[in-house]
Amino acid sequence: MKRILISIAVFLIWSASFCFAQTIIEDFQPSPVNQPGREFPQVNSEGRVRTQIMAPDAKYVQLDIGGVKYDLVKDESGLWTGESAPQDVGFHYYQLNIDGASVPDPGSLLFFGACRWGSGIEIPSNDQDIFALKEVPHGHVHEILFPSKSTNTSRRAFVYTPPGYDKATSERYPVLYLQHGYCENETSWPSQGRANLIMDNLIAEGKAKPFIIVMTYGMTNEIKFGGLRNFDIKPFQTVLLDELIPYIDDNFRTLANQENRAMAGLSMGGFETRLITLNRPDVFAYYGLFSGGVYKSEELVDHKNLKLVFLSCGSKERPDGVNAAANELRNGGFNAVSYVSEGTAHEFHTWRRSLHQMAQLLFK
Amino acid sequence: MKRILISIAVFLIWSASFCFAQTIIEDFQPSPVNQPGREFPQVNSEGRVRTQIMAPDAKYVQLDIGGVKYDLVKDESGLWTGESAPQDVGFHYYQLNIDGASVPDPGSLLFFGACRWGSGIEIPSNDQDIFALKEVPHGHVHEILFPSKSTNTSRRAFVYTPPGYDKATSERYPVLYLQHGYCENETSWPSQGRANLIMDNLIAEGKAKPFIIVMTYGMTNEIKFGGLRNFDIKPFQTVLLDELIPYIDDNFRTLANQENRAMAGLSMGGFETRLITLNRPDVFAYYGLFSGGVYKSEELVDHKNLKLVFLSCGSKERPDGVNAAANELRNGGFNAVSYVSEGTAHEFHTWRRSLHQMAQLLFK
Repeated sequence: MKRILISIAVFLIWSASFCFAQTIIEDFQPSPVNQPGREFPQVNSEGRVRTQIMAPDAKYVQLDIGGVKYDLVKDESGLWTGESAPQDVGFHYYQLNIDGASVPDPGSLLFFGACRWGSGIEIPSNDQDIFALKEVPHGHVHEILFPSKSTNTSRRAFVYTPPGYDKATSERYPVLYLQHGYCENETSWPSQGRANLIMDNLIAEGKAKPFIIVMTYGMTNEIKFGGLRNFDIKPFQTVLLDELIPYIDDNFRTLANQENRAMAGLSMGGFETRLITLNRPDVFAYYGLFSGGVYKSEELVDHKNLKLVFLSCGSKERPDGVNAAANELRNGGFNAVSYVSEGTAHEFHTWRRSLHQMAQLLFK
Repeated sequence: MKRILISIAVFLIWSASFCFAQTIIEDFQPSPVNQPGREFPQVNSEGRVRTQIMAPDAKYVQLDIGGVKYDLVKDESGLWTGESAPQDVGFHYYQLNIDGASVPDPGSLLFFGACRWGSGIEIPSNDQDIFALKEVPHGHVHEILFPSKSTNTSRRAFVYTPPGYDKATSERYPVLYLQHGYCENETSWPSQGRANLIMDNLIAEGKAKPFIIVMTYGMTNEIKFGGLRNFDIKPFQTVLLDELIPYIDDNFRTLANQENRAMAGLSMGGFETRLITLNRPDVFAYYGLFSGGVYKSEELVDHKNLKLVFLSCGSKERPDGVNAAANELRNGGFNAVSYVSEGTAHEFHTWRRSLHQMAQLLFK
């Protein structure tokens, strides 16, 4: 009997390892956000991430992605290799763990998220064309430093101006103020968010009106990553409304009025958008919350000239809440649109798609 | 006798360790180019770099800077700490070595150099004020994508426009084309080079005429880091002269003629500047080679409207060669200026200072 049990166990282990080997499809390609010339990390058609690092004297190396650590295996040369389980389409932050040290993967480009510059990976999606670099006219992304008396610093923002902005010197443009999430920064939308390429492509296809996008740092109390419970919107509201908007209107050819001004944000940036638009209903005419909460009709009754409320999230978040809120707003007489990003969670692919959707509805 | 020798040896070891302990001055401060909120790496008044990383299961961790590896020491919590020897003032690339793996220090911001995005450290200098972020009007740094038929891509460049450019819509500006070095890229000048802050400060002090700076990627044959011996300037010359300059003149308010156009570069970028200006003496009126070679009078005899030749390097490079070449050019009737950066080698502080010097001589 014992012998039979051992035979069964051996067979199960053997077949499991066989099945496991079968499930990894060997069509890995370098990630499009690798450092120049680097072959790893790679991604296969299942969305698995494979990476490699030379660490001849390490005891263990792990790939740490999506909250799970995957062991890499060392060969005789000291090169460690291993794969993750399949990941959702789109962009993910990740890191390596080398003998207990959390470090970026030297193969990847670096992105600001999770409160630090670290590695990122791009899992191909069937709609990645919306943010691909194409042969179309390209806008510019301006890095600006604007004076901020309230914080006693020069603060940084990125400003997307649409193709042709520099030539059409008599034309003025509407503006979208677009905020990043918790523990991200003003680079997140123009870098992993691909905001500029999304806009270049939409404008080239005639699907979006050309407008300016302004992206600044929304965690005004500097780096106090202590949670949002005691979040005070006042410092950022002051920077945005009293310092940044006047600077933008003074230095760029904007249409400087409510009808031509939108605000949107992802996650914490949605939370900020909600609070600022509720405090100051006179400033923006278009509101967008991407995985960042909802409005109720009763909150918006005194919002004059409100043109659009856009609510979105990933299908792996709480799409019912977003859809129900948009319904309630429409019943209340507001122009509300909800969008659910299929197959994605609380991550940047949801928000790229949200920008792609909302941009087509703005200033029309 | 043997006992005496042992006593002497013990004394020498004891006094050496005492002296060594004495030489590290405990006035370490966080590097100004750390990731937000990070206390390490730090630098002391001697220019030593101290860093820390948690790696409880590592056998060894080293700080790898300036071609030398310094051992870190582990405490009982698994935190490794250690210091380098004193470094030259200014900016240096570095990395960590964890059990044989070369990785960025998670405490540092990331910079492109040595063919990869990696850690950088800033050693205070008595002239760091030239690139400090001050309360002065700031120019903008535009990230642009320009079409390049010769390489069949959209290529990236950064364009500095001086303070007031966006408002002074009837004004036109001269342009400096400014190149990075080998294994750096178009981010190197606006990031570790601080080109925009150097210009903002000079313009605020009235020491430089406002002009545009254009910085693009100069290793046109993509990533073939195979050495410069077989370097062919033609592909980059085509991108620069036939594609980038026309795009800039079309999309920015430039003074589009030789008298208002300068080219300069550091190291390999100086090598490129030299070759392109020799091939095409009609395009630029100001030439700058920063640690990037020299010209001889006989090479420049047919250069009409040449206004300035600027040659520079660090005092730890070959200052005699640079000074002699400038002398020879002056004897040949050319307006040649040499500059030697005191106490620095083939590194970015030499080149920041070189830009600071040359900018004051341009377009006047």
